[in-house]
Amino acid sequence: MLQSNLFYKTTKQPPKDAETISHKLLVQAGFIDQLAAGIYTLLPLAFRVYKKIEDIIRDEMNKASGQEFSMPTLQPKKLWQETGRWNTIDPPLFITKDRHKKELALGPTHEEVITKLVREHVSSYKNLPLYLYQIQNKFRNEMRSTGGLLRVREFMMKDLYSFHTDEKDLDKYYNIMLRAYQSIYKRCGVKAVNVEASSGSIGGEESQEFMVLAENGEDTIKLCQKCGYAGNIEIVKVKICPKCRAKLDKKKAIEAGHIFKLGTMYSEKMKALYKDINGNNKPIVMGCYGIGLGRLLATIVEASNDEKGIIWPKEVAPFQAHLISLDNKKAQAVYSKLTGAGIDVLYDDREDVSAGQKFAEADLIGIPTRLVVSDKTGDRVEIKNRDNKKTELISPEEIIKKL
Amino acid sequence: MLQSNLFYKTTKQPPKDAETISHKLLVQAGFIDQLAAGIYTLLPLAFRVYKKIEDIIRDEMNKASGQEFSMPTLQPKKLWQETGRWNTIDPPLFITKDRHKKELALGPTHEEVITKLVREHVSSYKNLPLYLYQIQNKFRNEMRSTGGLLRVREFMMKDLYSFHTDEKDLDKYYNIMLRAYQSIYKRCGVKAVNVEASSGSIGGEESQEFMVLAENGEDTIKLCQKCGYAGNIEIVKVKICPKCRAKLDKKKAIEAGHIFKLGTMYSEKMKALYKDINGNNKPIVMGCYGIGLGRLLATIVEASNDEKGIIWPKEVAPFQAHLISLDNKKAQAVYSKLTGAGIDVLYDDREDVSAGQKFAEADLIGIPTRLVVSDKTGDRVEIKNRDNKKTELISPEEIIKKL
Repeated sequence: MLQSNLFYKTTKQPPKDAETISHKLLVQAGFIDQLAAGIYTLLPLAFRVYKKIEDIIRDEMNKASGQEFSMPTLQPKKLWQETGRWNTIDPPLFITKDRHKKELALGPTHEEVITKLVREHVSSYKNLPLYLYQIQNKFRNEMRSTGGLLRVREFMMKDLYSFHTDEKDLDKYYNIMLRAYQSIYKRCGVKAVNVEASSGSIGGEESQEFMVLAENGEDTIKLCQKCGYAGNIEIVKVKICPKCRAKLDKKKAIEAGHIFKLGTMYSEKMKALYKDINGNNKPIVMGCYGIGLGRLLATIVEASNDEKGIIWPKEVAPFQAHLISLDNKKAQAVYSKLTGAGIDVLYDDREDVSAGQKFAEADLIGIPTRLVVSDKTGDRVEIKNRDNKKTELISPEEIIKKL
Repeated sequence: MLQSNLFYKTTKQPPKDAETISHKLLVQAGFIDQLAAGIYTLLPLAFRVYKKIEDIIRDEMNKASGQEFSMPTLQPKKLWQETGRWNTIDPPLFITKDRHKKELALGPTHEEVITKLVREHVSSYKNLPLYLYQIQNKFRNEMRSTGGLLRVREFMMKDLYSFHTDEKDLDKYYNIMLRAYQSIYKRCGVKAVNVEASSGSIGGEESQEFMVLAENGEDTIKLCQKCGYAGNIEIVKVKICPKCRAKLDKKKAIEAGHIFKLGTMYSEKMKALYKDINGNNKPIVMGCYGIGLGRLLATIVEASNDEKGIIWPKEVAPFQAHLISLDNKKAQAVYSKLTGAGIDVLYDDREDVSAGQKFAEADLIGIPTRLVVSDKTGDRVEIKNRDNKKTELISPEEIIKKL
């Protein structure tokens, strides 16, 4: 894509209220735009990253036999009264009224809607297990929303719900999801560990959070470098690993995913029952598995940046390469060769911008591979990785091979 | 996919309030579930069709140089006050309040948000033209919502907005969009004509609706079979084609897309200006181009069905083939061969369901190709198209070639 056509604008100053690195960098590099507190537009650069994260998550959910579908944002009050969460969920619901004065909630989560759906579809143990997921926007009526995409009032989320005949079957699938989540973070280029967590407003029997290690993370965990054990500092009070007895380190991290064993909490309240092999009615055993896509995007930035800007892992980068032209005629030929080979290139074709400004913007935006064509590069191209100072002169054909 | 795993449930009776064929068939065949009036869950079968429609639309928008991004649902009141539409838009806005008592609208459309964004990004004629689009959910506070996915209060929509220096450039892009839309309908397997339309709450200078021909459509248009001219009966009062003077037919149709030349209506009210080549400030000239994805899905059903159920065009069908087993051992081998060749098959593997019920459900669901394996088919497979009575016995290899 030609950079002169790309809808973005970089800024020298970070937003005044910015408290996190990802908030500063995503705004300054032209990835996101704030419409109101905790409410953001994903501009084309961020949307490209978002789509790659979405594809990775979808792929992992499909591999885990998830069936994708889509539930509405607007949810009737009466469903939330069945579980008693209409007034108790924290943060409170965003509520709207229709023209018949009926109240509707803007869904922060979908346990009520899916439990209603499943109780109407499932009658026998033969219909179970069942794994359903959606990737869809959610709403949280937060009092205070600063922190960019890390603390928002509207956000995209993948939520998968699983339905089982018994706890044993839930445990089996919970472990499948645990591995799917580990694979998601790995494929997104970040290091995550899972820790026991409190279940909050969702409730249930047991839950695990996925913590991405990041120097400026808002959470603190204890991590055993030897066996990989990790725990939230509020839960793990000891200094020695309870698994292998090595010393525990204190690490900063960011929560970027949460999975829950719900058990029969929702199915009992909402009467979602199935008939077992003997014809007896039993409550369906449930699990739910959530991951915020915008939050993961910001978490990647928190985990991967330097003083010049973002360093995107190549798996989720908005483009594969950033071609910077200091000589448009030659650069155009290189651009044509690369795009012809199917490489997704952002081509800085601007003529009225200095070399220094182009380099500074490229570092800020953070595409993993920088290519420079100038009168000094001859018929070759200067290649440099974003996370490295080393430059090299190679032919366009070698670039195609590398990428 | 194994039909015994698919989350769906067919019903013999249509919903009591169903007024349209698509509403009846989509509910009866297990594609959608009503959560509240005009608010639906897309179940896995519908979601598969939805995704194919989305892919076609995205592809056409990208071909027309559109940059995809994503704006929020929640929109601050003050933006809607700038255009004066807070109280005047019809149907009225769904409104919610945050914990600081600030009012927010649930976006039925995004002219306000995008005009604000563009006025902050664009300063010069050098930044224009610009084409931005999103595929995202919208809200309409309708008083009455019956008709299934044709008249809803929450729905997915593709909206592209274009920004130009002058009317001439807008006209050029409007025609590019017109052709992109014609291509969308064609690729979705339906016949659409474009007619002059009234611009309603969106406003602007000129607009065209895309009408899909359907026997039970809610709209009536006049169509010239000779030259393809079409007009809304409220606008075209003559009986003779104004273009080629052939006789005009009266045809039933459904609106499934609307494009608008907005001109400078929004940019003047919201002060979205650019500097022209002489340094003078001028209002940006705008266009907007919308298509409801759920509505298009339902429109395809309205245009393509018979007394037995839906007949999906192959381009948007939930699966390529429906394999019906009356002999599971043999059918399993055929299923493995087909999926191994990358064919997307729904395999009715259920053992406790009669052949008659399996055939009736297959006709209701409407997958284009039906395959039957029974003790009578030997080592071959019976193949039949959904829109045809002719059956044929062919080998699995020939099926792979055909599909």
